[in-house]
Amino acid sequence: MAREEAYDKHKNPVPAVDFIIINDGDNNNSKILLVTRKNDPFKGMLSIPGGFINAGETAEDAMRREAKEETSLIVEPIAILGVYSDPRRDPRMHTLSVTFITRIVQGNEDAGDDAAALKWVKTEDELDSLIESKRIAFDHSKILYDFKKWLKSSRASVDSSSCLTFWSTKKEQIDEPMQVKATE
Amino acid sequence: MAREEAYDKHKNPVPAVDFIIINDGDNNNSKILLVTRKNDPFKGMLSIPGGFINAGETAEDAMRREAKEETSLIVEPIAILGVYSDPRRDPRMHTLSVTFITRIVQGNEDAGDDAAALKWVKTEDELDSLIESKRIAFDHSKILYDFKKWLKSSRASVDSSSCLTFWSTKKEQIDEPMQVKATE
Repeated sequence: MAREEAYDKHKNPVPAVDFIIINDGDNNNSKILLVTRKNDPFKGMLSIPGGFINAGETAEDAMRREAKEETSLIVEPIAILGVYSDPRRDPRMHTLSVTFITRIVQGNEDAGDDAAALKWVKTEDELDSLIESKRIAFDHSKILYDFKKWLKSSRASVDSSSCLTFWSTKKEQIDEPMQVKATE
Repeated sequence: MAREEAYDKHKNPVPAVDFIIINDGDNNNSKILLVTRKNDPFKGMLSIPGGFINAGETAEDAMRREAKEETSLIVEPIAILGVYSDPRRDPRMHTLSVTFITRIVQGNEDAGDDAAALKWVKTEDELDSLIESKRIAFDHSKILYDFKKWLKSSRASVDSSSCLTFWSTKKEQIDEPMQVKATE
């Protein structure tokens, strides 16, 4: 009862999850899964999958549940892309979205629940024009824009570790002639 | 009205912010600001500053407001450390914490609102023993443990860029003898 009282006393944003499901292809050829919305708001428009977090459920569990319900996929989080909480982001009420980047662990995509259809979008070419098209629900074009930046920086950090590998490879190649030189 | 109805219909966790305020000293000598709680739950225990997000306010604005109220400091976010939403994290109700890492932009710390006192804690030595002490409110020892990991990896990424610098420096040194060799 104390719980309920404390809850009702405050007026707070309603927490939700949204998530980008990545399907990694070959180099830079990844795709992400978008949903055509079956219901208002933004009926018929594209969005990333998502939904409200229920009391008693963690953000991660809400994400797993919504992924299963909307896409039939079992997904796991890779990272938190951001938290989006502009009061104008949802016309129904003030929502706060914990936005995950996720990978598929199991299953085949199949639209369920309030998804009219699912659509794979290539991150390298299709996504940019889609972001510009203004056919995206809520603030999800902002989210997808931030995701593109994340992709770039995460690739940059992969490149940076390959640089480390490159460096250690080079180092061996370099050490050799120096040793030869030392024994000359 | 539709707003209120939609809000009351759902039972969701109550969103809050918590934040680590870093004061960077010389190398690896940073401090973070903890609060002795004036009120229950966990009265008298240490926590990181935080509070609930009001409807109509972004998570970042809630963080700025609470920082001002509790510590008199003006802070800005550096990163989102994580989102903590275990239903058992707060004995009063199910809360979801968006946890920021922040830096001081202006002001001097001064305990206000529901902070009984403020305490700077060195991240290199004091923090570990504090995390182990179990004198920390809510799930904030978990948050501080994750923060220590974040500090290490963020330093590692600094080291990795110095490696790049190191590599490009080395490369020049290496290119020289090779050029010399080529002209031999």
